[in-house]
Amino acid sequence: MADVVNLGDVQKAAERIDGFARKTEIMTSQYMNDLSDRQLYFKCENFQKTGSFKFRGALNAVDDLISTESSSVALAAKLRNLEARIIMPENAPACKKAAVRDYGAQIVECIATDEGRQEKLKELQQVLGSNFHFLSSNQDIRVIAGQGTAALEFLNEVPKLDAIVVPVGGGGLLSGTAIAAKSIKPEIKVFAAEPAAACDCYNSLSKGELLPNASPPQTIADGLRTSIGKTTWPIIRKYVDRVILVSEEEIVCAMKLIWERMKLVVEPSGAVPLAAVLTEEFRTIGGDRQHVGIILSGGNLDLERLPWLKGRPQ
Amino acid sequence: MADVVNLGDVQKAAERIDGFARKTEIMTSQYMNDLSDRQLYFKCENFQKTGSFKFRGALNAVDDLISTESSSVALAAKLRNLEARIIMPENAPACKKAAVRDYGAQIVECIATDEGRQEKLKELQQVLGSNFHFLSSNQDIRVIAGQGTAALEFLNEVPKLDAIVVPVGGGGLLSGTAIAAKSIKPEIKVFAAEPAAACDCYNSLSKGELLPNASPPQTIADGLRTSIGKTTWPIIRKYVDRVILVSEEEIVCAMKLIWERMKLVVEPSGAVPLAAVLTEEFRTIGGDRQHVGIILSGGNLDLERLPWLKGRPQ
Repeated sequence: MADVVNLGDVQKAAERIDGFARKTEIMTSQYMNDLSDRQLYFKCENFQKTGSFKFRGALNAVDDLISTESSSVALAAKLRNLEARIIMPENAPACKKAAVRDYGAQIVECIATDEGRQEKLKELQQVLGSNFHFLSSNQDIRVIAGQGTAALEFLNEVPKLDAIVVPVGGGGLLSGTAIAAKSIKPEIKVFAAEPAAACDCYNSLSKGELLPNASPPQTIADGLRTSIGKTTWPIIRKYVDRVILVSEEEIVCAMKLIWERMKLVVEPSGAVPLAAVLTEEFRTIGGDRQHVGIILSGGNLDLERLPWLKGRPQ
Repeated sequence: MADVVNLGDVQKAAERIDGFARKTEIMTSQYMNDLSDRQLYFKCENFQKTGSFKFRGALNAVDDLISTESSSVALAAKLRNLEARIIMPENAPACKKAAVRDYGAQIVECIATDEGRQEKLKELQQVLGSNFHFLSSNQDIRVIAGQGTAALEFLNEVPKLDAIVVPVGGGGLLSGTAIAAKSIKPEIKVFAAEPAAACDCYNSLSKGELLPNASPPQTIADGLRTSIGKTTWPIIRKYVDRVILVSEEEIVCAMKLIWERMKLVVEPSGAVPLAAVLTEEFRTIGGDRQHVGIILSGGNLDLERLPWLKGRPQ
C-alpha cells in the first residue's frame, strides 16, 4: 500500500513554506562529539519561528487549505484571515499558552489526555459546524509533510548523516522525518527517542499494534505526552528502526548539557534525542553510526520553572 | 603615534587561532529587527570554545609567547605544557571558577576591585619570580589583537554592517573590535555598551582622562566590572564613537529577550549591547545605522541563579 505521505509531498511542502519558515541552523559541538564518541549534528528547530518545528507543519497545512479548498477569491481571503481555536491540555506550560494568545488565537482547554482532547474536539465541532476546518497537530497528512521539511534541509546540508534521532509524541515529526530521510537515503537509520514515562510508541512497535498511553503520562517533556495515532502509526511501523527510551533524569541531564555546553535554550522534549544518544543502548546499537543527526525540536518553556531548580531555594 | 595594536596584528592573530577557535555563527531574528527598527546581526561568541570571546585573545597570547620567546625546543615544550594560575575576583560566578579548574588551572582569588587584582598579582610575582609570564586578560596587546578577530569574521561575513556594538569591561574586546572594524571600514560606527553601575569607560571619555571605577561596581554583568586600563584607553579614546549606558533592569530585560526569542543562552554581560540598542538614546543617535552588529560576548553563568528568579519562590 502506498504511504499516505511521500517524498513528493514533503518536497512540495518545502517549496510552499520557503521564505516563510526559517532554514534553521545546524550546530556542532566538540564537547558533545567527545561525549558520544561520534559526530553529532544538531538541527536547531528551537530557532524556528514560534520556537518549534511545529510551524513547518502548520504553515503547510494552512497554505494547503487555502490553495486547494478555495474555489473563489472570497473564500481564500476569508481563510487567510483565519480565526483559530487551539485545543490545549490544561497543564500546558504557561509560556506556550501565552504565545498562542499573542498570535491571536483562542485557547480551548481540555483534560490532559488523548480522550480529553477528542471530547473537546467533538464539542467544538457541534458548536461551530462546517465553518471550521479541523487540523490535527500531528495526524494531518499536510502537517506530517511539513514536518518532514526539516529532514530535507538536514540531509541536504549534511549528506553524510547515517542516523537521525527524533523525539516522538504524536509522531508527526517522526513520521515526516522518516519518510523524507528513508526516501532520500534508504540506508539511513531513523531512531525515535521517547520518554519511558510516555512509551506508547515503544509499546506499539513491541506489540505490533497501536497502543496509546493508557493514562496521562507524567513526563517533564510536555511536548511528548500525546500518543501516536492512526496516521502516524503505519508510517512509524514501516520506517522507524527502533525506539530508545529515556528516564526523566536523563532528559533533564541532557537538557542542562545542551544549555551549558552549547548555549542553546531547548525545552525538555527537545533534549530527549540527545538523552537517547547518550544511553548505553545507543552506544551498542548505534556503534556503526558515526554521523548522527539530532533534531532539537523546540525551545519553548517557562524560564521561571527550570527543571534543575525544583525544590531548590533561590 | 602609531597604535600599539594594528590591523596586521589582528590578521596575524586570526591566522594563528585558525582551526582552534570557532568561527562563530551569526544569528538574526525577525523579532529583534522589528523591535529595534533595523537589521540586527548577532555574532555568537557564546558559542566560542570556553563559552566566551576570551578564548581568542588567550589563545593568541599563549601561542605568541611560545613562538617568540622559545629559542629552543625545550622551552617551547615547557610552555606548551603550561602551568596556569588565574587571578579571579572572589565573587566570580561559581560556574566560571569551576570551568577554570576543569581546564586544569589553579585559581588565585582576589578582592573584587582593580586594586585587589593588582595586589594579588604583585604577591604572586614575588613568590613565582621569573618562572611565570603575566598575561593581562584585557591590557595585553596580544590579547587585544586576538579579541579583534571576532570583528574580522563579522565584517567578512556581513560587509554591510554600519555599526558594531560591543560590551566594555576592561576594554580588550572593545579596543580589538574598534581597531579591526575602523581599519577595514573607516565609516563604521563603534559603540561601547556599558552598565551605568560600572561606567568608568563613559566617565573616561567624558572627562578625557582615564578614570577607573572608584569602588567595586555593583552590576549583574560580572564580566564588565573591571575598568579599562592603560593599553585599552588610548585605543578606545581614538576609535570609539560613543558609550551607551544601560541600567541593571535593561540588562536583565535584554538578556531574557535573547533567551526567550532567540533561544540563546547569554550571560548578563553578553546582553548589554542589545540593551544599549534598545535604548531611546540609540534610537536617536543610531538612526542612520541600518545594519547593526552586536557581539554576544559570552554565555557563562550559573543556570541555578537566573536574574529573573531573584526573590521568587521555586
